[in-house]
Amino acid sequence: MEMRPHVVIIGAGFGGLETARRLAKAPVQVTLLDRRNHHLFQPLLYQVATAALNPADIAYPIRAAVATQKNVRVLLAEALAIDPAARTVALDGGGSLHYDYLVVATGATHSYFGKDQWAQFAPGLKSVEDALEIRRRIFLAYEAAEREADPVVQREYLTFAVVGGGPTGVELAGALGEIGLLTLKKDFRSIDPTNVRVILFEGTDRVLRAYPPKLSTAAKESLEKRRAEVRLNTFVTAIDATGVTVKTAAGEERIGVRTILWAAGVQASPLAAFLDVPRDKSGRVIVNPDLSIPDRPNVFVIGDLAKMMIAAGAQEEVPGVAQGALQGGRHVAKIIATEAAGQTSERPAFRYHDKGNMATIGRAEAVVATKSVAIHGLFAWLMWWAVHIFFLVGFRNRVLVMLNWMWSWLTFQRGARLITGPVGPLPPITTIDEHGDIPLPRAAKSVELRDLPS
Amino acid sequence: MEMRPHVVIIGAGFGGLETARRLAKAPVQVTLLDRRNHHLFQPLLYQVATAALNPADIAYPIRAAVATQKNVRVLLAEALAIDPAARTVALDGGGSLHYDYLVVATGATHSYFGKDQWAQFAPGLKSVEDALEIRRRIFLAYEAAEREADPVVQREYLTFAVVGGGPTGVELAGALGEIGLLTLKKDFRSIDPTNVRVILFEGTDRVLRAYPPKLSTAAKESLEKRRAEVRLNTFVTAIDATGVTVKTAAGEERIGVRTILWAAGVQASPLAAFLDVPRDKSGRVIVNPDLSIPDRPNVFVIGDLAKMMIAAGAQEEVPGVAQGALQGGRHVAKIIATEAAGQTSERPAFRYHDKGNMATIGRAEAVVATKSVAIHGLFAWLMWWAVHIFFLVGFRNRVLVMLNWMWSWLTFQRGARLITGPVGPLPPITTIDEHGDIPLPRAAKSVELRDLPS
Repeated sequence: MEMRPHVVIIGAGFGGLETARRLAKAPVQVTLLDRRNHHLFQPLLYQVATAALNPADIAYPIRAAVATQKNVRVLLAEALAIDPAARTVALDGGGSLHYDYLVVATGATHSYFGKDQWAQFAPGLKSVEDALEIRRRIFLAYEAAEREADPVVQREYLTFAVVGGGPTGVELAGALGEIGLLTLKKDFRSIDPTNVRVILFEGTDRVLRAYPPKLSTAAKESLEKRRAEVRLNTFVTAIDATGVTVKTAAGEERIGVRTILWAAGVQASPLAAFLDVPRDKSGRVIVNPDLSIPDRPNVFVIGDLAKMMIAAGAQEEVPGVAQGALQGGRHVAKIIATEAAGQTSERPAFRYHDKGNMATIGRAEAVVATKSVAIHGLFAWLMWWAVHIFFLVGFRNRVLVMLNWMWSWLTFQRGARLITGPVGPLPPITTIDEHGDIPLPRAAKSVELRDLPS
Repeated sequence: MEMRPHVVIIGAGFGGLETARRLAKAPVQVTLLDRRNHHLFQPLLYQVATAALNPADIAYPIRAAVATQKNVRVLLAEALAIDPAARTVALDGGGSLHYDYLVVATGATHSYFGKDQWAQFAPGLKSVEDALEIRRRIFLAYEAAEREADPVVQREYLTFAVVGGGPTGVELAGALGEIGLLTLKKDFRSIDPTNVRVILFEGTDRVLRAYPPKLSTAAKESLEKRRAEVRLNTFVTAIDATGVTVKTAAGEERIGVRTILWAAGVQASPLAAFLDVPRDKSGRVIVNPDLSIPDRPNVFVIGDLAKMMIAAGAQEEVPGVAQGALQGGRHVAKIIATEAAGQTSERPAFRYHDKGNMATIGRAEAVVATKSVAIHGLFAWLMWWAVHIFFLVGFRNRVLVMLNWMWSWLTFQRGARLITGPVGPLPPITTIDEHGDIPLPRAAKSVELRDLPS
């Protein structure tokens, strides 16, 4: 029997899945591990959290993605430890795998900067479960507001805070505004959902720091049209069930808010620690120019878990986006395939091709920045739309997401407005009189549909 | 201010939602309570459990369903008690509602015939959460089988049991067979998913007792083509984490099976007890011919919570299907609207119009029975398809479900193969050698795609 090298890939995100696929024709055996059965298209996860898409629209079974690739075995398993000297990965359940090559692509998770007690009050957005929990909280807040008799508390239920002004924070804040202004507009009787208030907290002096300053300004203005206040140079110092405390140059302030979302810090997956090599302060592995780790040429780290430079000797880092992980996966697959085929040329250094960044703020509003272009508005939004559809895994998902978006565009509705999981406790109902009279909600005072870009 | 009667409706299933909608033009104020924010199209819930549809495809926000109906207020609330003398409904959170008319439409839940400890091993199918839990168990069983080294245990993971041969049991059993035979066919390396084994247990001498005997026979044969053994005259006497014990005329038998689904008994919602009127042994309220309850002409019970007769004086019961609830809702709405308008004619008795029954078994296979027709096969399946699309709430859902089904039909895939929630514990991985060699799965021995009706 032929002895093909065994390539173990941990994590089937953008980097890991791409590595496996690019090894399709290489003389290797691949084992692809993930603790989930699905590959997640994370750039659209905020759309699940805000009820625009279904989980299954952006999550694709890993097995189905490589079903016809005969040299890949998929295992639903969690890697608990790595022993680089013995070349083994220890798995949940007590088993372990031996590898000839190892690709670690387990990504990052939220970081609360040491304040882990904030997690329960301000969930972050990394998994399908996170997204469903956020969706539950958003729509439950309106239900609680409808039942609430105290106007101060009712106001707090209609207030939504987002911590962190990166792409995820901006996308969430824009969608939160539109849910009240457009989706739920007509659905309540005691509250007026268009009185929604969104607050986006950002520690630096602009949102979307990876973009040119003029796009940060445009994004801020677009958010403000959607009832989102953007508070720059503001740090969150405390979070609990009924509000946040923030610190600015002017001093501390307490803001009553019942729904808080976390889009601030990330930290590398803990698996990195077993590799026993230098890491940066957020825990990412500092990789060699070929993406292997020091002294272990058969171990590669790619994606959000790696601190990769855009080229050998460069000072600029590869951003933590899908493109970085995909390109890293391709690079590593090429090296492994070459060596498995018996060729012994020197390994090439990784070189990042920056295809630009894009983020969406809402209906007909996105920002797009490439080396040569910095635009926002309708055309940017159409570009965002096309690119995201194109990169979605699986033909069916593309079609369904496209239809969902077209439907939302036409109806202002969101297709997945489902509250699943625990409901309540909700405020007591004391506001309905003997005859169930239905007070008309206060008329919407501010942003109207026609003010939004159409 | 005009004094309109206050109609409180508990439950926004088929019966409750229909009552509210049919009161659109009546001079009443309606409060529609539900402990969920969505109306659930329960006839298709098994398709969520078997990954063919997304939860949001069959769950529609109650608020959106009545958003433009100005005399309806929707409350996300749980009714804890009813006081018919005081005409009040006590709600979670401590508040209560006064009513002039009350419509109780809270349906039914599973019954384990007093063996509530079985619930953890054999979940039933009533809510979106139930469906997602069943989906999780089904697909996790294949993952566990792929990891399992012991062939006996592996066999148990590839065995699925369904208790109860009514429509839900038959639909689940058919889909379970097709998941292994078609959907997962190519996706594993250590197991052959087409070796799936499904066992349907039914206590009486045929499945689908509400249908003509020849359709029961046809359903049984169709199930057998899908690798489902149908065990008639068989009672389950014990259920635990690794199997079931059944009793037949031949004696007791223990069967090792890791995934067990419950589709056997239902019992009426506990709210019925507060009405203080006679109930049948499954807890349903025995209603008057006009669907009100004895001595309380302003309280109606409809849907699965009521024991309704098909006409005044008839001995035949209205079956616990959507049509029964919808027609009950229409009847009650008409009575309330008439009386609210000041007319005092005698109340008409409810009369059920039997539009027939239908259940699907799998690709191109369904049974349809009306007064004049009893058919099965492709044409029945197309009828099932058309009727279910037609009755789905919301245009968007209809389109998406149609597309999902067409896609599944063409590709043999299921669109929502997502495992969410806890994963594991799974068996240890001890079956992969040093070089990760991938054994070819044993060739499928039995049912091939071409044997299935296409």
